[in-house]
Amino acid sequence: MSEFSQTELNKIRRLPQRGQYDKETVYSIVDEALICHVGFVQDGQPFVIPTIHVRIGDTIYLHGAVANRMLNHIKAGNTVCVTITHIDGIVFARSVFHHSMNYRSAMLFGKGRVIEDEKKKWDIFAALTEHIAKGRWEDSRHPNEKETRTTTIVAIDIETASAKSRTGGAKDEPEDYALPYFAGVLPVAFHYEEPVRDENLPSDVAVPEYLAQYKR
Amino acid sequence: MSEFSQTELNKIRRLPQRGQYDKETVYSIVDEALICHVGFVQDGQPFVIPTIHVRIGDTIYLHGAVANRMLNHIKAGNTVCVTITHIDGIVFARSVFHHSMNYRSAMLFGKGRVIEDEKKKWDIFAALTEHIAKGRWEDSRHPNEKETRTTTIVAIDIETASAKSRTGGAKDEPEDYALPYFAGVLPVAFHYEEPVRDENLPSDVAVPEYLAQYKR
Repeated sequence: MSEFSQTELNKIRRLPQRGQYDKETVYSIVDEALICHVGFVQDGQPFVIPTIHVRIGDTIYLHGAVANRMLNHIKAGNTVCVTITHIDGIVFARSVFHHSMNYRSAMLFGKGRVIEDEKKKWDIFAALTEHIAKGRWEDSRHPNEKETRTTTIVAIDIETASAKSRTGGAKDEPEDYALPYFAGVLPVAFHYEEPVRDENLPSDVAVPEYLAQYKR
Repeated sequence: MSEFSQTELNKIRRLPQRGQYDKETVYSIVDEALICHVGFVQDGQPFVIPTIHVRIGDTIYLHGAVANRMLNHIKAGNTVCVTITHIDGIVFARSVFHHSMNYRSAMLFGKGRVIEDEKKKWDIFAALTEHIAKGRWEDSRHPNEKETRTTTIVAIDIETASAKSRTGGAKDEPEDYALPYFAGVLPVAFHYEEPVRDENLPSDVAVPEYLAQYKR
């Protein structure tokens, strides 16, 4: 897989050793996340909105109601920044200064366009559904004509991107290692509990395997 | 506690019944989160960067190295949008169209300023540390003169804000309830595992109570 070239836009300046530009790393962060945070500018004002996404190739797809302000702004061809963050741990150093987080984040830059082709919309509905739970598309009632018509899908072609991450333990100043304060990492992860059945669900409809064994 | 007035900036347009404007709701979302996503605009380009935060009163504080590009932009008085999102569950409806997420999110708008007063910086170091783990400030080595000098703290006074959330189960079209597809909610939450001790930690330093029983 190829690599994003480093430009003024995506170059990691602070702690550049934490930066990565290969698509494999960036896209693994994107694909693991349930949601992203989308940044855009309207009349000079920044907005950041959380929403679910799916990536196909070098494109991010977002969806929502036709009246959705963010989507209407994006589909007009405006520039957006899509950021995804996974928290993996809280790093406790002996010194306040060296406290940190273990994380993996990706920042993607691109411009929006709308998807109007019905076949293409259908494929993205399927991809969004599979992004949420692999196996769900073939185990659900598919969108009808009205639902398809009242849903906007926008594409953001990724022009450039970067990933930034930290792993590992606490790092302290040499003279602090003798101090009597705890140091180490508190691991953090999303936990998926047992599915809660809808109260109207017939008792012969079982919890599907892709939910009983859910992971991302 | 008071309420943010609804303006063009913070008014929830899509699904307005999901919007809340009282500070108690907004700030409980802000305070529970380990990190926020900060949106800002440079030369017309939106950026969204994850970082830890702490709220004191109606102000959000961020910190980082003096060379940090985002902080230098914010401290110049620019407008930012701070967004915080908690995912509480994935909602599986019988129809693809009615799939949803249970979530709580907050969007805060304001302008930045820098904190230079040393006493104030000290108080914010303490608040940031306590935000990460209550009890940690008094159980760690405090910042020295150099660490204080090389850390920038910016304040964002919250001018307006809103919260948006969804709770509850799947909602389907009346005619879909007879379909044989699973419906319900997969609950999602952050899970904090057992702390991993630093390999250089003396064996007589115990895991403190605030980490053994960590919750947010």
